[in-house]
Amino acid sequence: MALTLSAVAALVQGELEGDGAASIEGLAGLAEAQRGQLSFFGSPKYLEQLKVTRASAVLAPVGAPVPQGVAAIRVAQPHLAFARVAQALQPKNEAPPGVSPRAEVHPTAMVHPTAHVGAFAVVEAGATVAEHAVISALAYVGRGAQVGAHSVLHPHAVVYAGCVVGKRCVLHSGAVVGKDGFGFAFDAAAPGHVRIPQTGIARLEDDVELGAQSCVDRATFGETVVGQGTKVDNLVQIAHNVKVGAHSILCAQAGVSGSATLGQGVVLAGQVGVAGHITVGDLSRIGAQAGVAQDVEPGSTLLGAPAIEHRQFFRAATVFNKLPELWKQVRSLVKRLEALEEGRGKHT
Amino acid sequence: MALTLSAVAALVQGELEGDGAASIEGLAGLAEAQRGQLSFFGSPKYLEQLKVTRASAVLAPVGAPVPQGVAAIRVAQPHLAFARVAQALQPKNEAPPGVSPRAEVHPTAMVHPTAHVGAFAVVEAGATVAEHAVISALAYVGRGAQVGAHSVLHPHAVVYAGCVVGKRCVLHSGAVVGKDGFGFAFDAAAPGHVRIPQTGIARLEDDVELGAQSCVDRATFGETVVGQGTKVDNLVQIAHNVKVGAHSILCAQAGVSGSATLGQGVVLAGQVGVAGHITVGDLSRIGAQAGVAQDVEPGSTLLGAPAIEHRQFFRAATVFNKLPELWKQVRSLVKRLEALEEGRGKHT
Amino acid sequence: MALTLSAVAALVQGELEGDGAASIEGLAGLAEAQRGQLSFFGSPKYLEQLKVTRASAVLAPVGAPVPQGVAAIRVAQPHLAFARVAQALQPKNEAPPGVSPRAEVHPTAMVHPTAHVGAFAVVEAGATVAEHAVISALAYVGRGAQVGAHSVLHPHAVVYAGCVVGKRCVLHSGAVVGKDGFGFAFDAAAPGHVRIPQTGIARLEDDVELGAQSCVDRATFGETVVGQGTKVDNLVQIAHNVKVGAHSILCAQAGVSGSATLGQGVVLAGQVGVAGHITVGDLSRIGAQAGVAQDVEPGSTLLGAPAIEHRQFFRAATVFNKLPELWKQVRSLVKRLEALEEGRGKHT
Repeated sequence: MALTLSAVAALVQGELEGDGAASIEGLAGLAEAQRGQLSFFGSPKYLEQLKVTRASAVLAPVGAPVPQGVAAIRVAQPHLAFARVAQALQPKNEAPPGVSPRAEVHPTAMVHPTAHVGAFAVVEAGATVAEHAVISALAYVGRGAQVGAHSVLHPHAVVYAGCVVGKRCVLHSGAVVGKDGFGFAFDAAAPGHVRIPQTGIARLEDDVELGAQSCVDRATFGETVVGQGTKVDNLVQIAHNVKVGAHSILCAQAGVSGSATLGQGVVLAGQVGVAGHITVGDLSRIGAQAGVAQDVEPGSTLLGAPAIEHRQFFRAATVFNKLPELWKQVRSLVKRLEALEEGRGKHT
Repeated sequence: MALTLSAVAALVQGELEGDGAASIEGLAGLAEAQRGQLSFFGSPKYLEQLKVTRASAVLAPVGAPVPQGVAAIRVAQPHLAFARVAQALQPKNEAPPGVSPRAEVHPTAMVHPTAHVGAFAVVEAGATVAEHAVISALAYVGRGAQVGAHSVLHPHAVVYAGCVVGKRCVLHSGAVVGKDGFGFAFDAAAPGHVRIPQTGIARLEDDVELGAQSCVDRATFGETVVGQGTKVDNLVQIAHNVKVGAHSILCAQAGVSGSATLGQGVVLAGQVGVAGHITVGDLSRIGAQAGVAQDVEPGSTLLGAPAIEHRQFFRAATVFNKLPELWKQVRSLVKRLEALEEGRGKHT
Repeated sequence: MALTLSAVAALVQGELEGDGAASIEGLAGLAEAQRGQLSFFGSPKYLEQLKVTRASAVLAPVGAPVPQGVAAIRVAQPHLAFARVAQALQPKNEAPPGVSPRAEVHPTAMVHPTAHVGAFAVVEAGATVAEHAVISALAYVGRGAQVGAHSVLHPHAVVYAGCVVGKRCVLHSGAVVGKDGFGFAFDAAAPGHVRIPQTGIARLEDDVELGAQSCVDRATFGETVVGQGTKVDNLVQIAHNVKVGAHSILCAQAGVSGSATLGQGVVLAGQVGVAGHITVGDLSRIGAQAGVAQDVEPGSTLLGAPAIEHRQFFRAATVFNKLPELWKQVRSLVKRLEALEEGRGKHT
């Protein structure tokens, strides 16, 4: 596919400096781009790359020094504009409507005629697959589960019985929605852990993405919910009865314990852990590997385990590295002080 | 389904205060429960919720102030009693006996007539599937593997060749039993990592549960073992030659390195790491994200990385946050002491 | 299978002390080995086990005190030699060539006649499966993807469209190659996260192993690459545009963020996190649970989060445990110093 620069400028509502009839056929980073490609300048740290880029055109903010011979399309948010152009250029490999003769679809399941169900996919009794949804080969939709319009289950994605996937969601390979929450009561008499049936469901609102191997467990009662537009990376754990607000970002290998609540626009970096039954306020950002054990005020930026304000963490971590030296100094101070105290004793 | 309160009281061996002929049809938390539902009061922190609950009946310890108009069933362990009632109320969606014509079962595999094998499930040569076991759609049982009576493999669960799953086990979607242990010897001459064949197996004793995406690797020699009644959450790694004792709990994203031994009743919280070749004693509790690098005495409660006694960790973590202040104070002390020392010099 | 000791000695280029005509039929650790089995002595800490082993023969370095009646095969690297013998003894359960009638192979896919494609496996349009490759039951090879000669995809392994798997690779169950990288641009106007199409691929060089549930995401542009001979354990995350050098080892639950570069022979222990856009130099070793946030010099050994030189970390961690005591001492020093200062005031 190709787009003229005029078309690109119109798409991103940017101002074109250059030949609108010229066309671009691909996208690349500033350093890798070739003639015929479009790039973007989104951060001052790539200034040197901008100056020597071979791209034909660059999405850049007003004032950025796009070199001579390279068309500029001025936009306020180059990264966002780039995403929009990339989507427009992406070939549409849409799955054809229809159910593979090698899929297993229960007679009571409702699959919209525009939906795709691939080979060896399974749609159980009473399940619903809405218009233009894609149930890829080897994916599984449990009894009575609902998959919303335009949602895509990649191969080996699993939706357990009764769970709900909204519209335009993406479940990557190995994503599991609605596995039983991890709840047991210990019976000392038997002895053994007695399963607490998890009678609730898991529900993804619209535009949610779950990465490969990510898990959203079903609730003990009620619902585990991942809010509208929230994006979840690979290998993330979302336990039973968790509520994740809209437009949050959960990076790879993060884990959220049972009944925790994340607000809107929260960012959990990689390998973060959030304890159960706590609330992380809107727009909070939790740094990589942090462990959040208490409620977090909206807008906080935390790091460390237990997590604290991130600048405080950096200052403390700096001293941590000097702890052996600090220890020695205090040992030395004690001795010197003792000497002084004895000296004073002599004086009196 | 519905149960009379008399039946509930009998089931949990509790004492009923209320109308035994009244029936309950569902379960819910104290705050969410409606008329016709049963709830439970298991912790003083829910006292306010208890006072205003709309449940028809509550499982509660003797003395708990169940409000007027709400039936009380007095039990010592309300949480456990609740689990028992929930199990009794749970609809039995049992998979029908028989092998789907779209399953692939090797002629030499032995599948009990009461077992269920779903569409696109695979049971390889010489494998055994015992009575009432459920091999769900898309699950895989390797060559010569054994699945015990009443065990359930959810869609996409995998048991590698020769491995053993006990009775009444549950393997959730993506659980993998018996993948090769991660063992290599480096050949500097080639160069390259030379695989050490993992000739042992992985074995789950009875009543083990593995969460979604959890892995139990096969042993180099002998067996990797997960003990009777142990429950494993999602995304947990159990490496080759590990032994996990009975009735332990491994929370999500915990990892146990090769040849480590966990005792009975051990609890690993989320994202805990246990180093190889060490022993964690019975009934030890390891807090979230802790890193255990040395043997742990039975009954310990640890936190931190490297893990230490949990109260000690909390005290140290509190000071950690004040390290910049501590550093400044020591700087200041040094100066003040130097001043004093010089002053003393003058005195003598 | 069985091997004579002469054959074993020849295989590992070792010097035999014992009866070359005797044969061994199995392998075991020193403590577990029985007559007829071969073991190895690779570390002084197993000296006591060596002295009482019942093995028929032991791979051991020159000078190691192999007991009377046990044959010794002298080699420089017993562990490596053991791996070679284990491979020779391993029964070859090779998958038969051919495509299962119950596999779904697109007419435009090219599957070599010596390759195996199991039941319910899917090979999409334009994909290539080279000689002696094994696409196990329930594995998935996406549109235009390439699987190299002698590579094995275990059940439920997934290769997304266009991605490349080299020769002799192993993808264990649940491994996912080429899922979309996790890249979004936020549109405050809409509002919502706008997907940045990930138009690159993921590529595994030859002899790479991916453990169960491990993920290698496709690049935004260009390639995510895992270098020749690198071995990846279970539940590992390798994000988009990462480059991992040859012969590296990534242990379970490690995570590497986008655009990071790992050199050759790097070892990431379990649960390590590597930040985005940084470089970890050749032969660096990063200890368990460490968090690497900055470039790492080749040959470094780091621990902690943020990661520091490992001896420094151990020293600092030792003091960490004594922080409450340190805090008290400083409090006390301040008071005593104040007293002295006042006292000196009196003197002057």
